[in-house]
Amino acid sequence: MNPKRITGVLSPVVTPFKADLSPDAEKFVRQCTWLLSQNVGLAVFGTNSEANSLATEEKIELLDRLIAAGLDPARMMPGTGCCAITDSVRLTKHAVKLGCGGVLMLPPFYYKGVSDDGLFRNFAEIVERVGDSGLRIYLYHIPPVSSVPITLTLIERLLKAYPGTIAGAKDSSGDWNNTKAMLDQFAKSGFDVFPGAETFLLAGLRSGGAGCISATANTNPAAIARLYDTWRGADADAQQKRLDEIRGTFAKYPMIPALKAAIAHWSGIAEWATVRPPLVALTREQAAALVSDLKARNFDMPRLRG
Amino acid sequence: MNPKRITGVLSPVVTPFKADLSPDAEKFVRQCTWLLSQNVGLAVFGTNSEANSLATEEKIELLDRLIAAGLDPARMMPGTGCCAITDSVRLTKHAVKLGCGGVLMLPPFYYKGVSDDGLFRNFAEIVERVGDSGLRIYLYHIPPVSSVPITLTLIERLLKAYPGTIAGAKDSSGDWNNTKAMLDQFAKSGFDVFPGAETFLLAGLRSGGAGCISATANTNPAAIARLYDTWRGADADAQQKRLDEIRGTFAKYPMIPALKAAIAHWSGIAEWATVRPPLVALTREQAAALVSDLKARNFDMPRLRG
Repeated sequence: MNPKRITGVLSPVVTPFKADLSPDAEKFVRQCTWLLSQNVGLAVFGTNSEANSLATEEKIELLDRLIAAGLDPARMMPGTGCCAITDSVRLTKHAVKLGCGGVLMLPPFYYKGVSDDGLFRNFAEIVERVGDSGLRIYLYHIPPVSSVPITLTLIERLLKAYPGTIAGAKDSSGDWNNTKAMLDQFAKSGFDVFPGAETFLLAGLRSGGAGCISATANTNPAAIARLYDTWRGADADAQQKRLDEIRGTFAKYPMIPALKAAIAHWSGIAEWATVRPPLVALTREQAAALVSDLKARNFDMPRLRG
Repeated sequence: MNPKRITGVLSPVVTPFKADLSPDAEKFVRQCTWLLSQNVGLAVFGTNSEANSLATEEKIELLDRLIAAGLDPARMMPGTGCCAITDSVRLTKHAVKLGCGGVLMLPPFYYKGVSDDGLFRNFAEIVERVGDSGLRIYLYHIPPVSSVPITLTLIERLLKAYPGTIAGAKDSSGDWNNTKAMLDQFAKSGFDVFPGAETFLLAGLRSGGAGCISATANTNPAAIARLYDTWRGADADAQQKRLDEIRGTFAKYPMIPALKAAIAHWSGIAEWATVRPPLVALTREQAAALVSDLKARNFDMPRLRG
């Protein structure tokens, strides 16, 4: 991995909404400030951020608010890949102008079964149109949700065409073999691979990974960041096991509503549980069961309140 | 079907792009004018329009240009369903303000495996936020592309909550049994079912369907519209067979690039072949083979030129 680049643990920051479903920029700034204090970077506008449930203007406004609040853009990797190339270019340009450390880029995800040629053309057009040597693109491979995979062949072709600009990938395939293949094939070229969950944080680091970008870094940031910092230590496997248990508890429920329910509970702010359609918040019973299960595992979210 | 509503054959109008990939509003107006002259309505911003490859502002601008050119909004059913509810509301409000006969609404399609509760909430919020009795929503069921189905149960629930506003559906499942079930269950409540291809135009009409919304209505409009007008005639099955042959010729290639290649050929305007990523235009060889195959079937696009 490249030491000048974003590394470590990043959170696809959950987006707080008001009761009328508009984004709550104040809560968002507070959450991002807290995550940075826990040594976790800001992959805002990821899948867990309900980013594709936000209009482009809403994302631009939220990003501007983070910068206005004085948060360090070098620690930000906003998601900027949209279905429409005009939206992707607009958002990416904005992120680069603000000095973001990188951008996490979904492929256009409406059309299925598209060719690598078409996907190459999408990313190439974005690179050319943004036209800034400060651009660092992290390709976002999440076939279970996008249904449009980013193949190793496509990565190879993009890396060859735009070395330096194509900076790495988030692999949310959930398939360690794919993550390992990415690492083996590209990590030595300075391509930073982030597994899409802490599940593969330790395995990734042992194979040259750059960290991880994980849903549960929203709620368990310090412990995940600690494994990143101390992964060569004797207790690394024990730490990984503990992380897996906490993640497993969240994963019994739909992940995004569960993360928000936990934040609502530990922050004492009920509105945090709000999700935009098509997602649905946990029921009161589900939320209570999640919290009870987490407490039984001695889970806590220190200093979140206030 | 309701005689005051949009019926008949509609085209998900292909969107012309300039060489720089910006939408070409002049060509768009000409194409829509031609389609209306062929007795085909305007389901602009459908799947075949590369609508999800357009930003919301680009769609608003194109729709405004059609109205400014004097085209009849009562013949328009623009696609207004986006991943972000804020985009869906904005586009739908605009379409209603312009007097569009209806809107064709995709479900939010990024998150997969979402519940009917979440989808109901999406459509219900849009209806409430648009808050206009002139709103007519046609639900867009296209699971092969969206991966998010609109179930019969969801339709039933929406129809009960918003009778009149939930005006019908486009069924692009390609599954006649599903179209038939929609017709049998809901047509008598004034719910207008449009099969998503002319393949089921005749079968649909014989079961109470309202017409069809079909990709190939971009290139074969008059013949499809004629079957709609004369489906009780003795030659209806022969007409259907002929339509199927032409469609089958296009379907040997990726549909959207093939439609655009045919329009480029018959209009004499090469730029028409342009598609936005992630799609890829037909190669010169593919386009020539398509045209040759269509000509061998005596296919023509009269009066398209000029």
